[in-house]
Amino acid sequence: MDKATIIKIGGNIVDDEALLQSFLQKFAALAGAKILVHGGGKLATRLAEELNIPQQMIDGRRITSAETLKIVTMVYAGYINKNIVAILQSNECNALGVTGADGNCIRAHKRAAAEIDYGFAGDVDTVDAPFFSRMLLQQIVPVIAPLTHDGQGQLLNTNADTIAHQVAQALSRHFQTTLVYCFEREGVLLDTTDEESVIQNITPGSYKTLRSGNIIYAGMIPKLDAAFAAVASGVARVVIGNGNKLDKLLEGTSGTSITNGA
Amino acid sequence: MDKATIIKIGGNIVDDEALLQSFLQKFAALAGAKILVHGGGKLATRLAEELNIPQQMIDGRRITSAETLKIVTMVYAGYINKNIVAILQSNECNALGVTGADGNCIRAHKRAAAEIDYGFAGDVDTVDAPFFSRMLLQQIVPVIAPLTHDGQGQLLNTNADTIAHQVAQALSRHFQTTLVYCFEREGVLLDTTDEESVIQNITPGSYKTLRSGNIIYAGMIPKLDAAFAAVASGVARVVIGNGNKLDKLLEGTSGTSITNGA
Repeated sequence: MDKATIIKIGGNIVDDEALLQSFLQKFAALAGAKILVHGGGKLATRLAEELNIPQQMIDGRRITSAETLKIVTMVYAGYINKNIVAILQSNECNALGVTGADGNCIRAHKRAAAEIDYGFAGDVDTVDAPFFSRMLLQQIVPVIAPLTHDGQGQLLNTNADTIAHQVAQALSRHFQTTLVYCFEREGVLLDTTDEESVIQNITPGSYKTLRSGNIIYAGMIPKLDAAFAAVASGVARVVIGNGNKLDKLLEGTSGTSITNGA
Repeated sequence: MDKATIIKIGGNIVDDEALLQSFLQKFAALAGAKILVHGGGKLATRLAEELNIPQQMIDGRRITSAETLKIVTMVYAGYINKNIVAILQSNECNALGVTGADGNCIRAHKRAAAEIDYGFAGDVDTVDAPFFSRMLLQQIVPVIAPLTHDGQGQLLNTNADTIAHQVAQALSRHFQTTLVYCFEREGVLLDTTDEESVIQNITPGSYKTLRSGNIIYAGMIPKLDAAFAAVASGVARVVIGNGNKLDKLLEGTSGTSITNGA
């Protein structure tokens, strides 16, 4: 089975031009089939402020009003996505930027309003794995902006971590997939004040022990739950670590690796 | 040889939500291989105003400062392109939005500053015809935003009429291509005050006569010169007319057809 690597970067890289350039050079140099998923960063918030469009965040999630959807479509699918594609092209990496609407590759539905109404936020229903496989076989590198659509003409703001996870999962039928979450820390830390306390490997068994001992920082739990869901559904390996050390994350000499322990 | 239709729409359709919806329904219903190229419209100008970014137009062309490039990237490649793609998907048309940077499909160079410095404006060098052919053969409908790149990481604002012409020309080696320019008039008019005075067909011979008699409205001359350049370089037919009547334009019962007269 061929290998494919799905890498997610967030605001800490997207917002920092020098960091983004250096990350993209490393990403371009990676051998084999690969996909980049990018988050949003602060630019959307800044643009909303300049346009006097009020922004509401609940538990770190943006409430997506119609005006905010317009802004994130411009910033994520336009400015960020196309700049990443142009920089990758200048590094001899044949990137092609998409949202879930393009090629109907990621279908979602608008999250039902419950206690919180998230507005135009999408929960992923289906990923068209053959769409991505065909691109990868043509040596094209998909760059996914965190937007999906509902098939009825509505774009939806969608969490980039979730997109990365769902795409990796869908591709595991065709490829041996590795999913990499890049963030600002060195990995999952035993002591959040010590970047050298990275836990190198976590399996479902050791995760139980770590959680029951309250050793895992609460903010990491949703990320780890998602990582275990990914390995439970066919993704070979999930790595969480510092995007600056992309090659080492993939080698397994940096970051935290999550495997199903088998 | 298979047929392919390349259709360009401008601000008069892009800026009018109802017109855009009805145009895209007709576009989605067209049989066969097709590509949509869209212009910018007034939204970029409006956004620049709201953000207090001064806009300078010379002879109808936007001078693209670094700040303006950021705006057109957001509006053209983000908002307009992705909304068109989502609407087409809701009409069972498998659209995929691209700029020239995506898949390296349209390479350009920054126009050299002469009497006028157009800033980050691109003049097209190469169109990757096999890229578009492969998409068309996969029943994907490319939707092109008017931006290209220079291969060095720089996005460039590029005239949508020119992109449509260059893509049609490049595809004529693989397809029998028809290029359609949609605008707000019924076609090339003998009398600009009379929408019924459409000239149905123009050949290089009749064009000479019309021009020497000063019968052609000056504003149409660049469009017609481009149309004749297209038919001279392999495009089978160029049609200029009202986007509301897309099916009739293609049937030849509305608008002005430009052929090489052979």
